[in-house]
Amino acid sequence: MMFKKITIVGFGLIGSSIAREIKKHKLSKFVSACDISSKHLTEIKKLKLADEVTPNLKQSMIGSDLIIISTPLSAYKEIFVTIKKFANKNVLVTDVGSSKLEVVQMGEKILKNHAYFVPAHPIAGTEQSGPTAGFVNLFKNRWCIITPCKLTNQHSKNKIKKLWEIFGSNVTTMNPKNHDNTMAITSHIPHLIAYNIVGTAAKLESKTKSEVIKFSASGFRDFTRIASSDPTMWRDIMISNKKQILFMLKRFNQDLNNLKKAIEGNNKKKLFNTFRTTRNIRKKIIEAGQDINQPNFGRKN
Amino acid sequence: MMFKKITIVGFGLIGSSIAREIKKHKLSKFVSACDISSKHLTEIKKLKLADEVTPNLKQSMIGSDLIIISTPLSAYKEIFVTIKKFANKNVLVTDVGSSKLEVVQMGEKILKNHAYFVPAHPIAGTEQSGPTAGFVNLFKNRWCIITPCKLTNQHSKNKIKKLWEIFGSNVTTMNPKNHDNTMAITSHIPHLIAYNIVGTAAKLESKTKSEVIKFSASGFRDFTRIASSDPTMWRDIMISNKKQILFMLKRFNQDLNNLKKAIEGNNKKKLFNTFRTTRNIRKKIIEAGQDINQPNFGRKN
Repeated sequence: MMFKKITIVGFGLIGSSIAREIKKHKLSKFVSACDISSKHLTEIKKLKLADEVTPNLKQSMIGSDLIIISTPLSAYKEIFVTIKKFANKNVLVTDVGSSKLEVVQMGEKILKNHAYFVPAHPIAGTEQSGPTAGFVNLFKNRWCIITPCKLTNQHSKNKIKKLWEIFGSNVTTMNPKNHDNTMAITSHIPHLIAYNIVGTAAKLESKTKSEVIKFSASGFRDFTRIASSDPTMWRDIMISNKKQILFMLKRFNQDLNNLKKAIEGNNKKKLFNTFRTTRNIRKKIIEAGQDINQPNFGRKN
Repeated sequence: MMFKKITIVGFGLIGSSIAREIKKHKLSKFVSACDISSKHLTEIKKLKLADEVTPNLKQSMIGSDLIIISTPLSAYKEIFVTIKKFANKNVLVTDVGSSKLEVVQMGEKILKNHAYFVPAHPIAGTEQSGPTAGFVNLFKNRWCIITPCKLTNQHSKNKIKKLWEIFGSNVTTMNPKNHDNTMAITSHIPHLIAYNIVGTAAKLESKTKSEVIKFSASGFRDFTRIASSDPTMWRDIMISNKKQILFMLKRFNQDLNNLKKAIEGNNKKKLFNTFRTTRNIRKKIIEAGQDINQPNFGRKN
């Protein structure tokens, strides 16, 4: 087996999917599941996804040779401090967070001389949350980005790389800042504006709101999918990657203001040219195997 | 048969899907397909979707008892004028446009004393375009909104209602202004901001852009679907429903500005509360049968 004891802290969609893969591929003699939600703890026991199920961080990580952090970002600090105090000396630590620079800096500061840290981010997930939402093969054929830091050496990096390859992922490496910059436009701003438009609709008077739901197939429903992602997780991402998000939001707003002016001024040429360039991006995404080549995502509704 | 000759002006995704239904249900002795694209005309002939295939508007509508307009909105004026000059007196005219108030006013003015006009809007479609993208059952279990006007009487309305029910749609009635208001938030603003964010990404330096494509599964890819819709059609919608779109855009921008301030000020409570309310809207959309109850739209990628 690759590991003697793996601790998974935060046992939601991602953490529980990792546990399912670990079990499937027999990667550890012992798996400890740590979560603060009593609902989750009950579900994990029922699903038999771990050998130990506990809300106690210290207990969960004692004796582990791998600690996987898959909680919302705001829990990281306490987890790092607990690792420093109670985990095995030179334990291997990794995470799955969607924002990296802040995490890397915090990890380097707290875990220095105590642990190896290999920050990672699997580009996989669904809009659902919790241990029951996880599944085997969630990571198959998806990217996993490793953002090495000062506490990453070749050996620890290779171990985490191997792990994700066993899960079926394609592993790539980026520096934390580049990662955060790319994710701001591919993930964080899309979520922010999806949450925003669904929020705008939620505030409409109830008659209009019921019509929005009724006729949502005209475009709106697409946005409600990512706007139903976990609110705690996304609150934390917005704060943690604040700088890159605000930078990209500024560009988004400038472009939107230009489109607004084009509508106001009947500038058909500007509208047509903007709407024409975007088709090509989808074509490339489909060619890159990153989305399905069927109308309406192939959905049967 | 319900009709002797049906003319379909604009033979794209929607027009060609209507033709497929007319053929399937044997609703007309003769179908004339009119389109300005020579590529489309060749495809229509190949697909054998009409008895007559022509770029000539006048020729196509002579002798028809039903004219269906399924072109971009900017073509309507010329079509209305040609109907007035050359179509059968008291011909039944309908359309499928996504914006209604402007169309209704224009139709009433030009077609007065010449035709019955039953404005309609099927809430169905995909991001693809052209006669080859159409298919039977596109309208099945989808809403079709009829927005009656001064040129609609009970008989003409019933005929168009019957038509859409034969296509499998659920027909409902709204006034044109309500329709435009609802569509601004459910369809037009979602398309505008999807086009906008994909446009913002398209302008990034090429290294970043290739990373956006690579990691698009993190949220961005969802937006590229509707941002690959037909640019001419969407240019026209933005101009035609300008007033309602600008009104809703203002609300969207106010809300987005509040979220921006919350990020800047680390206002976790505001972010959490906004992100929490939106899940409920998706739940209602799924309960209303307007989207699929599977993670990631059930797509296999």
